[in-house]
Amino acid sequence: MTDAQKTGDRQEPAAGTAAAGRPSRRSVLGWGGAGLALGAAAAGGTAAALRTGGDASPAAAAGDAVPFHGAHQAGISTPVQDRLHFAAFDVTTSDRAALVEVLKEWTAAAARMTAGHEIGEGAVPGNDELPPDDTGEALGLKPSRLTLTFGIGPGLFEKDGKDRFGLKDRRPKALIDLPVFPGDNLDAARSGGDLCVQACADDPQVAVHAIRNLARIGMGKVAIRWSQLGFGKTSSTTPDAQTPRNMMGFKDGTRNIAGTDTERLERHVWVGEKDGPDWMTGGSYLVARRIRMHIETWDRTSLAEQEDIFGRDKAEGAPVGKEREHDEPLLKAMKPDSHVRLAHPDSNNGATILRRGYSFTDGTDKLGRLDAGLFFIAYQKDVRDGFVPLQMNLARHDTLNEYIQHVGSAVFAVPPGVRDEDDWWGRALFA
Amino acid sequence: MTDAQKTGDRQEPAAGTAAAGRPSRRSVLGWGGAGLALGAAAAGGTAAALRTGGDASPAAAAGDAVPFHGAHQAGISTPVQDRLHFAAFDVTTSDRAALVEVLKEWTAAAARMTAGHEIGEGAVPGNDELPPDDTGEALGLKPSRLTLTFGIGPGLFEKDGKDRFGLKDRRPKALIDLPVFPGDNLDAARSGGDLCVQACADDPQVAVHAIRNLARIGMGKVAIRWSQLGFGKTSSTTPDAQTPRNMMGFKDGTRNIAGTDTERLERHVWVGEKDGPDWMTGGSYLVARRIRMHIETWDRTSLAEQEDIFGRDKAEGAPVGKEREHDEPLLKAMKPDSHVRLAHPDSNNGATILRRGYSFTDGTDKLGRLDAGLFFIAYQKDVRDGFVPLQMNLARHDTLNEYIQHVGSAVFAVPPGVRDEDDWWGRALFA
Repeated sequence: MTDAQKTGDRQEPAAGTAAAGRPSRRSVLGWGGAGLALGAAAAGGTAAALRTGGDASPAAAAGDAVPFHGAHQAGISTPVQDRLHFAAFDVTTSDRAALVEVLKEWTAAAARMTAGHEIGEGAVPGNDELPPDDTGEALGLKPSRLTLTFGIGPGLFEKDGKDRFGLKDRRPKALIDLPVFPGDNLDAARSGGDLCVQACADDPQVAVHAIRNLARIGMGKVAIRWSQLGFGKTSSTTPDAQTPRNMMGFKDGTRNIAGTDTERLERHVWVGEKDGPDWMTGGSYLVARRIRMHIETWDRTSLAEQEDIFGRDKAEGAPVGKEREHDEPLLKAMKPDSHVRLAHPDSNNGATILRRGYSFTDGTDKLGRLDAGLFFIAYQKDVRDGFVPLQMNLARHDTLNEYIQHVGSAVFAVPPGVRDEDDWWGRALFA
Repeated sequence: MTDAQKTGDRQEPAAGTAAAGRPSRRSVLGWGGAGLALGAAAAGGTAAALRTGGDASPAAAAGDAVPFHGAHQAGISTPVQDRLHFAAFDVTTSDRAALVEVLKEWTAAAARMTAGHEIGEGAVPGNDELPPDDTGEALGLKPSRLTLTFGIGPGLFEKDGKDRFGLKDRRPKALIDLPVFPGDNLDAARSGGDLCVQACADDPQVAVHAIRNLARIGMGKVAIRWSQLGFGKTSSTTPDAQTPRNMMGFKDGTRNIAGTDTERLERHVWVGEKDGPDWMTGGSYLVARRIRMHIETWDRTSLAEQEDIFGRDKAEGAPVGKEREHDEPLLKAMKPDSHVRLAHPDSNNGATILRRGYSFTDGTDKLGRLDAGLFFIAYQKDVRDGFVPLQMNLARHDTLNEYIQHVGSAVFAVPPGVRDEDDWWGRALFA
């Protein structure tokens, strides 16, 4: 290997040229989509692809990168990607400055990775006596619409009665400890977390790479508490696309909030100036629930019962008595304890959440049953007006409960978007 | 829902028409790729897409279905898909006829699913008082190049000294119990199995759906012993495509056997008539190893050391002293204990295997480390001339062993392909 080939990302010859020798992620991107991506970058404010000299070539901006900077974090109202790697972290340092340093480094790395670049000097740094800055398994892969969405759990503000980082007074009222719901069977090892990062991408290797590299950057200061891969999206935020099906075979998320529906987003998802605290304006609250499905039992249930339980038909997804999936549901036509009726805003004083869950299958349990289900993710302006009343209603009455069990749970405050290069995840909180 | 909408798959109106109402997997396929797929179907012998009246429309054959019938099973030399769900089964019945019935039903279901169809009467059968024949989560998804590859483990021939199904005398000599290799740390719960099915597809939901439905068909007679999802392919069988990277960031499978290289396939992969036994002619032997990578340790290793360990450079994948990935390796230029040198046929009396592994990440272990690595899959004509000498050499000498550990292991005889509609998985063995 020549020295030229080992040169770091930013000193590399013009991307996209074969002569560059080293196949960085951006050099494999074609020029075809450059105009589109530049447009998207401009729309998103200061796009990562435009930040440095080396990154300014059209090839670098090509394809399917989602802008990292903006008023809101990407990965909430932006179109849902195909795959998920979600990680919850414990903060293991008690040094506030060290934690802040991690958050700054994370933000810089996230900006690069979401734009399809290697982090730091890349997988092949100039000095080969050092470990590479980037682990390299995403080399040659496209940005794949990677989004990295950062959240802060209750434990960062207070844990075991201790104000660990002097943040206790800044804890949002909406960031409650979730109540215990009927039927919960939570595994502590798969619940909670001081911080979280939701990585979504169309290529799972890109999502896994991102979480792994963030964990590596934080080593000694933060540690992964639990993580979850999701192989198939359920709810989408693009209602014109085909609604995906969950592991029960039903379409899931038909009436989800659309990413383009600014009015519903403002009302139900984004924290407003009046909602407080200030550092959360433009942010949201995330609830994650690992919902195991007893799919072997479900699969022995008759079609009629399955459809009664949901309140929609299986093939088309039409509500009871209607013909098409997107027809307005007539709640009275459904059984009182059907899932769709119980979850409808009209049954919950208007409570509405943006869903962004993924199907998971984590091999097999000790009884030979697939460890499969839904990794449920919901965003909302206030957990107390969103997930909590909704889930309390479902947990008490839903006939679906015979076939599911909530086995993991976590809640996070998701700050607003990173505005520009000088901004970083959590800056307004620590300011 | 109207009766017309509930009609089973085979009685449905012309596929692809909006009037059909019910979105079967085939009705969403366009007509664009029909010619291509029909060509592929013809090349593969009696293709599933041509078997029934309802399935004969061009729309049904469109897109990306891999022919199920043929001299060899698909999923070995056919192009490697993006995702994996691999399942090992214990046979729980002692009734030979019941087992044969499962294999026949599995074969019929596999032919349908690989062609992109629902199984049986589909997810929405005419009689809604019965559980659906198909669990439905793949409704609306394309065939996604799904292949289902079936194998038979040693335990079917003999277990705990018992000849369970009168097959003991038919056990191939090449189907050995694998020896214990230095460094092995095998988890019995993730090893072995009487049967296996390797499901590969570009859409993981299609692969997961297939394994789940096969498990459901076999309920009470076979049970999943363990299963493994793989999110990213490593080795490919199409050398013109970009070589994928493993979780260590290195290209993996550069010199793999190409699916078009008939001569190497005949020499190293397919069991010939002279090799015996008769029922295995045209088959192969599969070794699966769950290889955990200590990626946190790897990530702290210098680039120079990483490249020395592999014997290739990280960015391009070129062998030591060469410029390009596909340049012929000069073994003497590599360190004696480098991975590529030790694994090369010249270091193992010509031993050559076809690799078809996948990267996995199964969340996090109790120490907060990613449970990640390589689910290694290899096919060969005879395990005693393929994986065994190769792995014995690697296990004894490879410097990579500091960073990996084999934690699961299984070996299976993979019979030849299913010839036509009357044939079924294992027929020649049970005849």
